[in-house]
Amino acid sequence: MAAGCKAAARLNRICSNYHITIIEKKPCLSVSSCGLPYYAGGDVDDFSELIKTSYGVIRDEQYFHHVKGVDVLTNTLVSDINTKKKEIICCNIKDETFTLKYDSLIITTGAIPKEPPFQYQTSPAISFFHSPLDSKNFREAVQKGEVEKAVIIGGGFIGCEMMEALTSLWGIDTVIIEKEKSLLPGCLDSEISYLVESSVNESKIKLMLSESVNKIETDINNKPIVFLENNSKINSDYVFFCLGVKPNTKLALKSNIKTGKHSGIIVDEQMRTNIPDIWAAGDCVEVKNLITSKSDYFSFGSLANRMGRIAADSIGGKSFSFKGSTGTFSLKLFDNIIGATGLTEEKAKKLGFITGSVIGCWPDRPDYYPEMKNLFGKLVYDKENLRLLGLQMVGEGEVTRYIDVFSELLFHKSNLEDLVNLEHGYTPAHSSPISPLNNLGYMAINQECEGIKNFNPLLLSTFKGIFIDVREPYEIESNPFQQNSIQIPLSEVKLKLDELKSEKPVMFICEKGPRSYEAARIFTKHGCKNISYLGGGNLFYSRIMNSHFIKNLDNTFDKSKVETNSVE
Amino acid sequence: MAAGCKAAARLNRICSNYHITIIEKKPCLSVSSCGLPYYAGGDVDDFSELIKTSYGVIRDEQYFHHVKGVDVLTNTLVSDINTKKKEIICCNIKDETFTLKYDSLIITTGAIPKEPPFQYQTSPAISFFHSPLDSKNFREAVQKGEVEKAVIIGGGFIGCEMMEALTSLWGIDTVIIEKEKSLLPGCLDSEISYLVESSVNESKIKLMLSESVNKIETDINNKPIVFLENNSKINSDYVFFCLGVKPNTKLALKSNIKTGKHSGIIVDEQMRTNIPDIWAAGDCVEVKNLITSKSDYFSFGSLANRMGRIAADSIGGKSFSFKGSTGTFSLKLFDNIIGATGLTEEKAKKLGFITGSVIGCWPDRPDYYPEMKNLFGKLVYDKENLRLLGLQMVGEGEVTRYIDVFSELLFHKSNLEDLVNLEHGYTPAHSSPISPLNNLGYMAINQECEGIKNFNPLLLSTFKGIFIDVREPYEIESNPFQQNSIQIPLSEVKLKLDELKSEKPVMFICEKGPRSYEAARIFTKHGCKNISYLGGGNLFYSRIMNSHFIKNLDNTFDKSKVETNSVE
Repeated sequence: MAAGCKAAARLNRICSNYHITIIEKKPCLSVSSCGLPYYAGGDVDDFSELIKTSYGVIRDEQYFHHVKGVDVLTNTLVSDINTKKKEIICCNIKDETFTLKYDSLIITTGAIPKEPPFQYQTSPAISFFHSPLDSKNFREAVQKGEVEKAVIIGGGFIGCEMMEALTSLWGIDTVIIEKEKSLLPGCLDSEISYLVESSVNESKIKLMLSESVNKIETDINNKPIVFLENNSKINSDYVFFCLGVKPNTKLALKSNIKTGKHSGIIVDEQMRTNIPDIWAAGDCVEVKNLITSKSDYFSFGSLANRMGRIAADSIGGKSFSFKGSTGTFSLKLFDNIIGATGLTEEKAKKLGFITGSVIGCWPDRPDYYPEMKNLFGKLVYDKENLRLLGLQMVGEGEVTRYIDVFSELLFHKSNLEDLVNLEHGYTPAHSSPISPLNNLGYMAINQECEGIKNFNPLLLSTFKGIFIDVREPYEIESNPFQQNSIQIPLSEVKLKLDELKSEKPVMFICEKGPRSYEAARIFTKHGCKNISYLGGGNLFYSRIMNSHFIKNLDNTFDKSKVETNSVE
Repeated sequence: MAAGCKAAARLNRICSNYHITIIEKKPCLSVSSCGLPYYAGGDVDDFSELIKTSYGVIRDEQYFHHVKGVDVLTNTLVSDINTKKKEIICCNIKDETFTLKYDSLIITTGAIPKEPPFQYQTSPAISFFHSPLDSKNFREAVQKGEVEKAVIIGGGFIGCEMMEALTSLWGIDTVIIEKEKSLLPGCLDSEISYLVESSVNESKIKLMLSESVNKIETDINNKPIVFLENNSKINSDYVFFCLGVKPNTKLALKSNIKTGKHSGIIVDEQMRTNIPDIWAAGDCVEVKNLITSKSDYFSFGSLANRMGRIAADSIGGKSFSFKGSTGTFSLKLFDNIIGATGLTEEKAKKLGFITGSVIGCWPDRPDYYPEMKNLFGKLVYDKENLRLLGLQMVGEGEVTRYIDVFSELLFHKSNLEDLVNLEHGYTPAHSSPISPLNNLGYMAINQECEGIKNFNPLLLSTFKGIFIDVREPYEIESNPFQQNSIQIPLSEVKLKLDELKSEKPVMFICEKGPRSYEAARIFTKHGCKNISYLGGGNLFYSRIMNSHFIKNLDNTFDKSKVETNSVE
């Protein structure tokens, strides 16, 4: 796939006298696997689009030979490596065994899907979603009209993409089952997940969170029946396992190539394994997490490409290095773009960081400009040295822009002041003069240095004090704040300061955050203590109140499960 | 405006015992001036949108007093500063003179439009485009049906925005006159400008480049007549001067506040001037160019905001600093986003850098993904140490994303390897696994280390050698390359290597660049010298061939005016 093909093509470019062979156990190589959900969903109509070049030529053995200068053996499995003799033992589709000598070997065996932790029957309608065949089989079944109801098990990246794929064009009634309490667990903090979830308003989708599967059987028509731990069952026409992937290291382990605690092959910055003349790259290796400086595992096509190139460079005697990853990703889900980089607050806490965080909501361009869309984001930082740890954003606007920039900030171990100093290309068509990143920096500095607390909306029920809603009456009417509150427009807060002053904690509420911050500032300045404002405003709060998780809890929060930092 | 209002609000927040006054000579403050072209053009229908908060409250004196804790004197001119007595001399609209004491003074007098270098008559229909009144007057005239034909003098940011404003909604026949040979001169290198220009396909627009105005008179109906240096004249209903801005330092100069060679006030990183207790911020100051480390001038609202905050922080005893600017901008022009950061190649050469550059074209997401759009870009770097100097991009996709990230790279004085190492949030909906920035890095490294030349399309006529077009026949048919070429699809290049080998220089051509690079690589690998490929492919080349400049030159280039680096 990405790492192997890139390494081979690069090596051919830089080493004119090498004979390079790619060995692939599947019938074809270089499928754009990140495109498979779009083929399954019908956005990409013809499978061959995923294996064609941009100018319509299929990337087959001929193509690799003539254009990339690389020989390709498909339908060929490498069963073992003899690291002393420097040869590999191969087995082709005719069951013929043969050996090949190597001077340099790159292992790019990629990732394999994680097995479900429950029993399931074998059936064409119970499938992983990992290989081209998985997506082809599904498309065939859909096009024959065999799929009206589907179940996706796992709410990670692929599970979310498949949720959209199944419903948007095909209109399949889809149940998505996730054992954690929110979608994209581990990738997003809960409140950001709930925001994502609240935007999944497709009538065809049923989210089942905090639910586990017990077993999957098939009925007499070979249709799957999913039995849940809660003793209910779901009849379905198709079941997908989207439980994530793990490094495919079977071959490496046989050859005493070292793997790490994430089960990936351990490599240095030039992608060298512990065995001489063997490199590894792509989804089968662990990489350094640039925030923690520890080994981590990320299965991203963009990293695989870069690693493949570095491995080739190393073999070819060039000194480039793969420094590690910030774990940057983005994902489209219906109208939203979701992106994150660095650590979530949950992960950072687990790793022992004393975290601070702020949550915000902004228009993606000035309010006066037509077609304004809202962006929501969460910044996580280290309270001890104000170093940036992570960013999560969701919205219909240019989320990827901020995520990419933040990744670069993380690479440079930047702090809150660097965030405030950040320059961006401002035009009213695409941004505000103060970018969301500047804004998050300001909020965090104000929280740390001036004691103006940005209150996490997920913790609202823990707040024992007075709410003051500083929006205009027409705003409150159209999107009421779902707690008892005093209602005073911002322009009157200063005038009514004396009558509003209280011994109790006060939290200000507005639509997106800035006005409640202003009000909090006015109070603090006049000597009030224990003043906070609701991060992301009532817009963020009212959206997460609409999420499945919150609704299921009947508007009372499960506090034990909620992690946060900002309230004392 | 931005700097003054920001500084005042910030100062109020951090200094609880200060009495803060904003003095403004116009009748209102805090107009979003970057929004004026959109009001003129009708995208923003109601002028009050530009002075309202997001929740519909007008930012007037009352608002500033109650919400920001700041007093405002409008219609008041500061005529002088007595720096010894620490007081300012003011004059209000009733011609009353009075003095005000200060402990700390921040000068945020902004910028004023540059005066035309020719004579013109005074008329309501001959106007700068700078103040709210300018845009209001124009809107009134348009809405009365008085404007069918307009002339814009100056093709910089505002000139370009006004070109769209006048034509898109109002359908005004518009002539834009620019004395340089391309639009956005100084901001973009010529080839990128021509690309921008080729997308200006509005039938209502006439571009007059390399043209100068001699004088402007009015006819008996008071309609402007623009006389050109070439002795032709243009009758018009409205004329706009969009000749750029310069720092407004009249007050500062009176008070012996030092200005620099760009005529802006000189400040340190805390925005302090040379006079004790006087700060300056926004469009009236010079800032450090982070690439050259020399003083420079940028008139951007985003910088003004940040400077205002830093000035307030400095007065309030906080230690934040304004490090300088990479000169990052973006601009929407019809369907394109244009963005740049750092130095153009032309500017870098003038400053004495030995520059290298590469030009590219990419789909903004994988080819198989629906709604793919093309991005075009140019990277400029220092050949001596491979340090990044600048990036220019144009396209319908997420240009701002790459510009913002590159600005951060420039901030860190990054080099080509850093560009290659760059991580981005990859999803097929919004990007390719290898980002355009990675790609530009690869091309530049290949050019420097492997001798594969990226040939600047503007210089094509200087190439004396053989062109080989490696596209598929159907592509050549639909978008022919306008030079004599040998046509061999990439997959056959290697097979026909021996018969194609030549003593002459060879340049490969494809649609966007990657295939011609591959072909160049194959040739170089087999010992051929003097091999290059056309940067940005025939797509870039054919677009700039459609630009006004090239057309006017009757398909022969004005070589003397073209600057480049890459050809020996």
